[in-house]
Amino acid sequence: MRAYRFLNQVVKTCRNLSTVATYRSAQSTKYYRYHLAGTVAGAVVLYHCYRNKVFAATTVKDGRARWMDDPITDIEALEKSPNSMRTKMELLLMRVQAEFCHALEEQDGEKKFHVDRWMRKEGGGGGGITCVIQDSPVFEKGGCNISVLNGMLPPDAIAQMRARGKDLPQDKSLPFFVVGLSCVIHPKNPHVPTLHYNYRYFEVQKEDGSTVWWFGGGTDLTPYYLVEEDVVHFHKTLKDACDKNGNRGLYPKFKIWCDDYFHVKHRGQRRGVGGIFFDDFDQPNQEQAFQFVKSCAESVVPSYVPIVKKHKNDSYSYAERQWQLLRRGYYTEFNLVYDRGTKFGLVTPGARYESILMSLPLYAKWEYCHKVEPGSKEEKLVTVLKNPKDWV
Amino acid sequence: MRAYRFLNQVVKTCRNLSTVATYRSAQSTKYYRYHLAGTVAGAVVLYHCYRNKVFAATTVKDGRARWMDDPITDIEALEKSPNSMRTKMELLLMRVQAEFCHALEEQDGEKKFHVDRWMRKEGGGGGGITCVIQDSPVFEKGGCNISVLNGMLPPDAIAQMRARGKDLPQDKSLPFFVVGLSCVIHPKNPHVPTLHYNYRYFEVQKEDGSTVWWFGGGTDLTPYYLVEEDVVHFHKTLKDACDKNGNRGLYPKFKIWCDDYFHVKHRGQRRGVGGIFFDDFDQPNQEQAFQFVKSCAESVVPSYVPIVKKHKNDSYSYAERQWQLLRRGYYTEFNLVYDRGTKFGLVTPGARYESILMSLPLYAKWEYCHKVEPGSKEEKLVTVLKNPKDWV
Repeated sequence: MRAYRFLNQVVKTCRNLSTVATYRSAQSTKYYRYHLAGTVAGAVVLYHCYRNKVFAATTVKDGRARWMDDPITDIEALEKSPNSMRTKMELLLMRVQAEFCHALEEQDGEKKFHVDRWMRKEGGGGGGITCVIQDSPVFEKGGCNISVLNGMLPPDAIAQMRARGKDLPQDKSLPFFVVGLSCVIHPKNPHVPTLHYNYRYFEVQKEDGSTVWWFGGGTDLTPYYLVEEDVVHFHKTLKDACDKNGNRGLYPKFKIWCDDYFHVKHRGQRRGVGGIFFDDFDQPNQEQAFQFVKSCAESVVPSYVPIVKKHKNDSYSYAERQWQLLRRGYYTEFNLVYDRGTKFGLVTPGARYESILMSLPLYAKWEYCHKVEPGSKEEKLVTVLKNPKDWV
Repeated sequence: MRAYRFLNQVVKTCRNLSTVATYRSAQSTKYYRYHLAGTVAGAVVLYHCYRNKVFAATTVKDGRARWMDDPITDIEALEKSPNSMRTKMELLLMRVQAEFCHALEEQDGEKKFHVDRWMRKEGGGGGGITCVIQDSPVFEKGGCNISVLNGMLPPDAIAQMRARGKDLPQDKSLPFFVVGLSCVIHPKNPHVPTLHYNYRYFEVQKEDGSTVWWFGGGTDLTPYYLVEEDVVHFHKTLKDACDKNGNRGLYPKFKIWCDDYFHVKHRGQRRGVGGIFFDDFDQPNQEQAFQFVKSCAESVVPSYVPIVKKHKNDSYSYAERQWQLLRRGYYTEFNLVYDRGTKFGLVTPGARYESILMSLPLYAKWEYCHKVEPGSKEEKLVTVLKNPKDWV
């Protein structure tokens, strides 16, 4: 059993008691690492301990642990470098993952995310925390993955980065580090849109010891029926998050990038109503770029969860369900045919394909020559997917 | 209405009469082209007429027309060059398409293939005949497509052919011609396997007027449950077809090629139990190569239809249906991620994506980390998909 899942149970048990429970993490091989849970002045507190020192203390709200599992990077390493961007980004994404998963669990009311921790066997170090919810009352299938990977980038991968303008040497293998959070949620109800987001930080070490780094990410929405006010709410929340850091030029630029990227070219349709998408982001400096990414990542819950809450109990027909399944077929086409992350992931030795393909829906459908009826709600959606519009 | 579908009706009406019906084909723009149907000594005969001449006469069995639709290539052009390989291959594939579709319709007993004729708008001439059966008693979704395409091959497509050893010039665009028949059948019952086959003839015209030509193709089977005697029957029928022309080395070679090609690499599994697969086939000469391809294409019905007949009424459980849907997800992964034809098709301007994606199942499913139970029927199949074996 994972440390945090165990702690969740302990916390629930001891909430109204002054009990203290101890659990020694299975991940700790080198050092004695353990967690304590107890109540302090009525509040449940988790202590994350390393050797004989408390590494962190978390006041737990509603019996929830702060993270879905222990961080992938060893706690000693995180503790040693609290100001390094690797640490800051891993801890940000750990927190966003837990806040997002808990917010969805609250909407669901019944099922919890299943947490899988995996460590990489081939091609370098690192691992991931894959959280999956499947066949629950509200969510047909959803996954929210953290991965922290390091190893050597082969020369052809570096050549691709050079082609995108990175100042990296030719014909060399170089050490890299990446931490990312990637998520896709396919709800059951056709009136609740599918959500995807992905935020990541990438570093390549040059031979002279200097580091080339950048951020990438984005959030986008794929509705099955168009509710304009929901799409406006979604885009407005993203725009506010982008604008928060004073750079008003970023939302319009990343909105168009998103429309261009999530394009099912053979069908001449966008995958959904877009959002934001960016890559190679390193301006104006590392700290401000991080603040921008933080603001975007923190906007995921307020942009999406109110839409889930609003529509999760809407009634729907058999025909609406079939339409949702057809659109999920087009979603699958995008992910398997065009998505760079999926394509890159599937050809990477040692990649965990179950985490990569977690983005695929539980069910999808392909009908030969499906036509939407003129004047229908389905046609209203397709019109917007063929001609993306400005929402804010 | 298409000429042959009209004729089908006429033939059904006039079978027991000595009536003669005339229909002028909608495809004939330049010349007066028509068809006559009547009975001669009790047998129904179709006469295909061009100007004042009978181009061909067909004795119709069971009220069926010989082809699913008029050939894509103009009848005048076919008539002018009866010995050209283009004509021979188009007429062979037209016949195999009709025989195959009629054999499945007979197994189904209720639905008929829907016939779509399409003409290419961009990038050259030609078109296709797409025959689709969907949601019938026996078949969940199936398609059987003829396409006849010609136009100019861009230099990068020629570079790929050069890389495969073709004697073609660098940095030139050259005229090409291709005629192919491509088919995928996804039955409803999980005890009836999915079938795929594809036979094609390719020509590139060099600047000196000479032609570089080759054949490609194959037939392969994707069962959901392993019935060894069915797989042996399937492979034996293919081997007999290969051996018919005296070349006993081809079946073993093309059997291994098939196992190598239909490989869902990220899962470490073959798509199915294989069959035969070949490309760039031009030995020992054009006529003998054609006889080999003819023999393979004609073996499709006897290799597959008896298996449909044997299992189409087998009872099956909910769990068996779910397993079939999961395997159809893996089938979709192969087609969208690895299949060269699909990938090439989707990036080709003017390609008809509905005909390309017709190979996808009506429904597919993706479960996170699905595991087969040790000792189960599902595991028995997966073992063979991970370690292809010799069946004859």
